[in-house]
Amino acid sequence: MFKKLAFTQRRFLNMSLDSSKLVINKTTTPKTKLPNDELVFGKSFTDHILEVEWTAQEGWGTPKISPYHNLSLDPSAVVFHYSFELFEGLKAYKDDNGDARLFRINKNMERMSKSANAIDLPAFDKEELAKLIGKYVEVEKDFIPKGNGYSLYLRPTMIGTTPSLGVATPDKALIFVIASPVGPYYKTGFKAVSLQATEDHVRAWPGGSGDKKLGANYAPTIKPQRLAAEKGHQQILWLFGEEGYVTEVGTMNVFFAFQKPNGKKELVTAPLDGTILEGITRDSILELCREKLGDEWEVSERNYTIHDVKKAADEGTLIEAFGSGTAAIVSPVNNIEFRGENIKVPTSEGETGEVTKKVLQWINEIQYGKSQFKNWSTLTKDL
Amino acid sequence: MFKKLAFTQRRFLNMSLDSSKLVINKTTTPKTKLPNDELVFGKSFTDHILEVEWTAQEGWGTPKISPYHNLSLDPSAVVFHYSFELFEGLKAYKDDNGDARLFRINKNMERMSKSANAIDLPAFDKEELAKLIGKYVEVEKDFIPKGNGYSLYLRPTMIGTTPSLGVATPDKALIFVIASPVGPYYKTGFKAVSLQATEDHVRAWPGGSGDKKLGANYAPTIKPQRLAAEKGHQQILWLFGEEGYVTEVGTMNVFFAFQKPNGKKELVTAPLDGTILEGITRDSILELCREKLGDEWEVSERNYTIHDVKKAADEGTLIEAFGSGTAAIVSPVNNIEFRGENIKVPTSEGETGEVTKKVLQWINEIQYGKSQFKNWSTLTKDL
Repeated sequence: MFKKLAFTQRRFLNMSLDSSKLVINKTTTPKTKLPNDELVFGKSFTDHILEVEWTAQEGWGTPKISPYHNLSLDPSAVVFHYSFELFEGLKAYKDDNGDARLFRINKNMERMSKSANAIDLPAFDKEELAKLIGKYVEVEKDFIPKGNGYSLYLRPTMIGTTPSLGVATPDKALIFVIASPVGPYYKTGFKAVSLQATEDHVRAWPGGSGDKKLGANYAPTIKPQRLAAEKGHQQILWLFGEEGYVTEVGTMNVFFAFQKPNGKKELVTAPLDGTILEGITRDSILELCREKLGDEWEVSERNYTIHDVKKAADEGTLIEAFGSGTAAIVSPVNNIEFRGENIKVPTSEGETGEVTKKVLQWINEIQYGKSQFKNWSTLTKDL
Repeated sequence: MFKKLAFTQRRFLNMSLDSSKLVINKTTTPKTKLPNDELVFGKSFTDHILEVEWTAQEGWGTPKISPYHNLSLDPSAVVFHYSFELFEGLKAYKDDNGDARLFRINKNMERMSKSANAIDLPAFDKEELAKLIGKYVEVEKDFIPKGNGYSLYLRPTMIGTTPSLGVATPDKALIFVIASPVGPYYKTGFKAVSLQATEDHVRAWPGGSGDKKLGANYAPTIKPQRLAAEKGHQQILWLFGEEGYVTEVGTMNVFFAFQKPNGKKELVTAPLDGTILEGITRDSILELCREKLGDEWEVSERNYTIHDVKKAADEGTLIEAFGSGTAAIVSPVNNIEFRGENIKVPTSEGETGEVTKKVLQWINEIQYGKSQFKNWSTLTKDL
């Protein structure tokens, strides 16, 4: 009974995040902004950091925007030992009016909340955190580079900070948000990538946490990724099971397009079965393609295997393939090495396929506020 | 070719760890040592921290022992985002001569090296790190509590510190070692635990990294562990696959003892198939039991299922079960909840079984230098 009361109490405290309490302490030594052509993903950061501390006793504390600074943590903090860490990635765009826009931030907040729940980090009010991020973007607005493909990458992060080596639910945590100005993934137009399909390494498993955006899902993928790169491939294609199910590519979701015997075309991605990251770009592509591709296309979330892909390539019914994620939006594929053989993937329009190209354009236009689709693009000043 | 040269170069730099370069800067404000009865695992720490920085360009830097202090890291450091982190756990014991002893530290160094390799963190000279840890223990010797069951828990840790959000092999890293004085796991004799067998959550899988001591393997286990605790169980029993293979218990390896139809007894633990942590206590128990239990016992590393355990319990051929790990050495089990039913596990000697009790005694005697077994106990002054 005591435990149940304590848990209810804790839920209440966890929802105490309050954006109206935000304290802003601006830097007196602003950084010089880099020219657009010197921007490298995640290497340079803006002038400030947004932070909110949480304790099991007090709930969420005062949100603070202060000059970008190192985090100072006890070496026993659980984030260093047991991977109590999760993150989100989203971008702020500058529209033609000079206003800052965010793309589907509610989806990031939902996913962040699920990630926290998966590793017993605290709950938080999702709308309040979205508001805080909006205010943070307003403070950093001058760091949003102008131009198509340019944006300010935002990295909301939550870590467990309890200074104790006991493996247990953390009683201290920190949300922080940092931001890095970034350029277009493809500076000179599309560049198709070659994939190495792997059967030796398995990214995620039913009953595991591969569908959450936890730090834990990333470090173990780096060595196979590096080995693939040393063989001349840009990304790993993650397979699952003896059947060789296609799951993800690198740190992206993946789509394949097939010509079907009934004359239709099918755009396919793996279903959200607990082993697939719930990509917001993935979700957006599904929704946009269902609405815009037209009657000749079917859009499916279903299981398919590397053998299906190889057979389609052999028979000439493979149309195209691409990865999807926040960084690149879409990343066209032109080759897959599988068991020592190369499966050639068509790129009908030079370095990309038709759907890949359309998807990039549709999403870009929404992100920069050039076209409206539902309420996917939000002005930060309205948050 | 350039890449290969670079890699060879890097291997050389990685092996540059040199214990003779150690710089010691002792605290001028030593902490008051806690009395033995106030020691809590991993909550209080000694006066100093051992640190060595690494960069891809320079290899390992100067090892330093300095006053215990917070780590100051850029918020973009890869350890916070992608779980570039691994650790070891081992203990220093004070023997009857007042000398400090370590138990099989070479095994910890081997495993730490494998963990680093698994997530593309740098290699290091294992003997040199063991020497540094020996010197660190000598500095902290007064913090090793006296008495059977008391020890100084050591936590060697390696983290990636590259300040960049790119998901890639880190080019900066840090080894640090901290130490926490700890008391016996069972202050008033053995206390048997109840387990919750889970089929919903999977700790590790083939092609994953569950056999390495990565932070990534811990955070995802906490929520099922808490839910089991709320139902009155102390630990999770991790099963694998439709067959219900028994793999580990909580953060420990697990052993079961069965009476066999041929009149012999069998002590069983799961084989090291890539999903089982290569426990040093596990390995020590296997070796000691093979040598000391006698002819009536068979000691096996083989797959077995929760159904085998239930059947043996039903038929009266289940003898005992225990978890094994550095913290408790052994942890006797008296109950397993599986699909809503309780499997009663015998504890022939009150709160423990016969083998569990023997194993604890054997290992304790070696750890405190009261008996010799191979070269398993090392005086830190000899390292």
